[in-house]
Amino acid sequence: MALIVQKYGGTSVGTIERIMAVAEKVKARQASGDQVVVVVSAMSGETNRLIALAGEIDGNPDPREMDVLVSTGEQVTIALLSLALQKLGSPARSYTGGQVHILTDSAHSKARIQDIDGARVMADLNAGRVVVVAGFQGVDERGNITTLGRGGSDTTAVAMAAALKADECQIYTDVDGVYTTDPRVEPKARRLSRITFEEMLEMASLGSKVLQIRAVEFAGKYNVPLRVLSSFEEGEGTLITFEEESMEQAKISGIAFSRDEAKLSILGVPDQPGVAHKILKAIADQNIEVDMIVQNIAADEATTDFSFTVHRNDFNKAVDILHRTSEELGARDVMSDDTIIKLSLVGVGMRSHAGIASRMFETLANEGINIRMISTSEIKISVVIDEKYLELGVRALHEAFDLDENKTA
Amino acid sequence: MALIVQKYGGTSVGTIERIMAVAEKVKARQASGDQVVVVVSAMSGETNRLIALAGEIDGNPDPREMDVLVSTGEQVTIALLSLALQKLGSPARSYTGGQVHILTDSAHSKARIQDIDGARVMADLNAGRVVVVAGFQGVDERGNITTLGRGGSDTTAVAMAAALKADECQIYTDVDGVYTTDPRVEPKARRLSRITFEEMLEMASLGSKVLQIRAVEFAGKYNVPLRVLSSFEEGEGTLITFEEESMEQAKISGIAFSRDEAKLSILGVPDQPGVAHKILKAIADQNIEVDMIVQNIAADEATTDFSFTVHRNDFNKAVDILHRTSEELGARDVMSDDTIIKLSLVGVGMRSHAGIASRMFETLANEGINIRMISTSEIKISVVIDEKYLELGVRALHEAFDLDENKTA
Repeated sequence: MALIVQKYGGTSVGTIERIMAVAEKVKARQASGDQVVVVVSAMSGETNRLIALAGEIDGNPDPREMDVLVSTGEQVTIALLSLALQKLGSPARSYTGGQVHILTDSAHSKARIQDIDGARVMADLNAGRVVVVAGFQGVDERGNITTLGRGGSDTTAVAMAAALKADECQIYTDVDGVYTTDPRVEPKARRLSRITFEEMLEMASLGSKVLQIRAVEFAGKYNVPLRVLSSFEEGEGTLITFEEESMEQAKISGIAFSRDEAKLSILGVPDQPGVAHKILKAIADQNIEVDMIVQNIAADEATTDFSFTVHRNDFNKAVDILHRTSEELGARDVMSDDTIIKLSLVGVGMRSHAGIASRMFETLANEGINIRMISTSEIKISVVIDEKYLELGVRALHEAFDLDENKTA
Repeated sequence: MALIVQKYGGTSVGTIERIMAVAEKVKARQASGDQVVVVVSAMSGETNRLIALAGEIDGNPDPREMDVLVSTGEQVTIALLSLALQKLGSPARSYTGGQVHILTDSAHSKARIQDIDGARVMADLNAGRVVVVAGFQGVDERGNITTLGRGGSDTTAVAMAAALKADECQIYTDVDGVYTTDPRVEPKARRLSRITFEEMLEMASLGSKVLQIRAVEFAGKYNVPLRVLSSFEEGEGTLITFEEESMEQAKISGIAFSRDEAKLSILGVPDQPGVAHKILKAIADQNIEVDMIVQNIAADEATTDFSFTVHRNDFNKAVDILHRTSEELGARDVMSDDTIIKLSLVGVGMRSHAGIASRMFETLANEGINIRMISTSEIKISVVIDEKYLELGVRALHEAFDLDENKTA
């Protein structure tokens, strides 16, 4: 007998018919002898409906009251799913975040889970019940309703699995697993049966938006085995595991990319201590997040060139700030480009395999793709290229690193 | 400075526009120097929408889960009204029933309030905030969400007023007060500026459905002055007070009536101890509520005639049961009639005034209205008459007892 936490997102519970289908899936799991906790999101569209109601009143509503408002979305779903399970003859009981003491900090709309009291849930499980928990929400120390931010239901599921020491946390979504890259860009993309947490973090943050980053971090921190599956199709999905468990790790797990990038450079900055700090502080002060950062000694060796990428939404603001910083620092020039994308090769295997980077650069060169920026980490190599080369670059690398569907995992 | 609890029903908060109007009213009250707690219902239609969702799953849904489901309706309203108040510059904070510890028993969908912890609310009031509380809901000892049943928001408001020792509990509704009778039947009906709790209880139970009976009982028990006002019009409404406070009490406060009645009689029952019990037990065992009960010695003095009224919905069932009882007891006959109505004269003043009953019967006789059944209490005289005489009877009594609008209160 295993203890399984399953999470179903808004699309999976978007209609009464789909809620009934989820109930069937949960019931089948329980009938196979497992204990099941189900974490659910609001029915798709419901959260937006509630936000729109608030928007009619105030364009900049109080976060505390917004949390009171939007948390009703999941509360509706837990009641309906519990009723559906009962209708199928499965004893079930629903709990809001507050009722199972999902204790968070008080950062309304982006709260972080601090503790979960699993005792009540365990009592229900041991009494043979399915426990249905509202995702995305908790309470702070003073009993105020908080929410974890959009997509936070994944985090609730993982945190619940950690608190209950569950055998597996299963995230049901509208894709049937994690792919080597986006199948819309490379139709030969292959579903991975396993991926490590570290790789998943890199894939998630780079735009393979299967799972909330925070949920993956949480799972890694508490050693919760995480599985991504489809709500609508049968299949084993992708298991996200610890590296040690991954027996036959391929060198490269996948290719992630992000279209939301824009690149800025400040050239010929007099090279003195604290320059990087001054440049980035001005950006950070405006709450602009910086992604890749690259610094090089310039040709004249007395100055330096400094480049970084930001989200395209922040591009114009960042350019303005950088021009001011450039004047202050006496830099030679500012260059900016919002027609670039970031493309990343991800794989735990690259740690122990030399030559991955050079093969990557060679592959791109063979296709005539100019690399504008390079940044590497232990399990990832990212390059910035012109956006028009995105599909070409992804397909070329997918083939070069043996990721195509007809190859072995 | 007074502490006022205001309650706004579903129609009063049915749209964002109306919620803004309620916020204006509340703000004005606070600006006049009072502390204000607002209790709100779900936006009109919302509770029915939620019930319909559950109905798609199960025609006989689990009451615990139904309470989890429908309690979201009020939770949405408290958030929106708090946002509206904040938008107008009034600091406001919302609380669910659970958050202010409206402790109830565990009778889901018809729970009774046992205790309210007003400390948190008082702290907010003393900090200059308006406190917005979800009506209709509470939690039991184990933290399960409960609801008080339809219309229970009135009860929440009164209980909150009692717990906070509020100076007045104001129930805003779509009528502007309690009338001497239904203005749709007697256009000369007059709004009462005051009415006693006892009279209000009789008026409410007889079909003047301005307030929940339970709320009125609660207000009486805890000496909470209750005022009924219109959400949509200005005016003083009707204050429901204790008898002692009522300075110039008229003999008669109003005329209530109920169209939902049906009359059953069992005639010529051998008169022996326990007959009344046997007749009514068979009815009660089928969960049929009995209203008026009248027993007379029959002409032959060895048998008795026994009559009672039930709700028209239960009429056919009650007739069947009574026929069986009649055979068992060896009664002579059963008579039944579902074309009758009940008409009641209500007034604390009648206690100390003889001749009210005879004037009532005389008035009806003068109009040719035959009285089928009579029942009296300390502050009420009820008669059963043919339903076709309802309007005629109400108007005749309204005039006979000086209730018309041009008369003094």
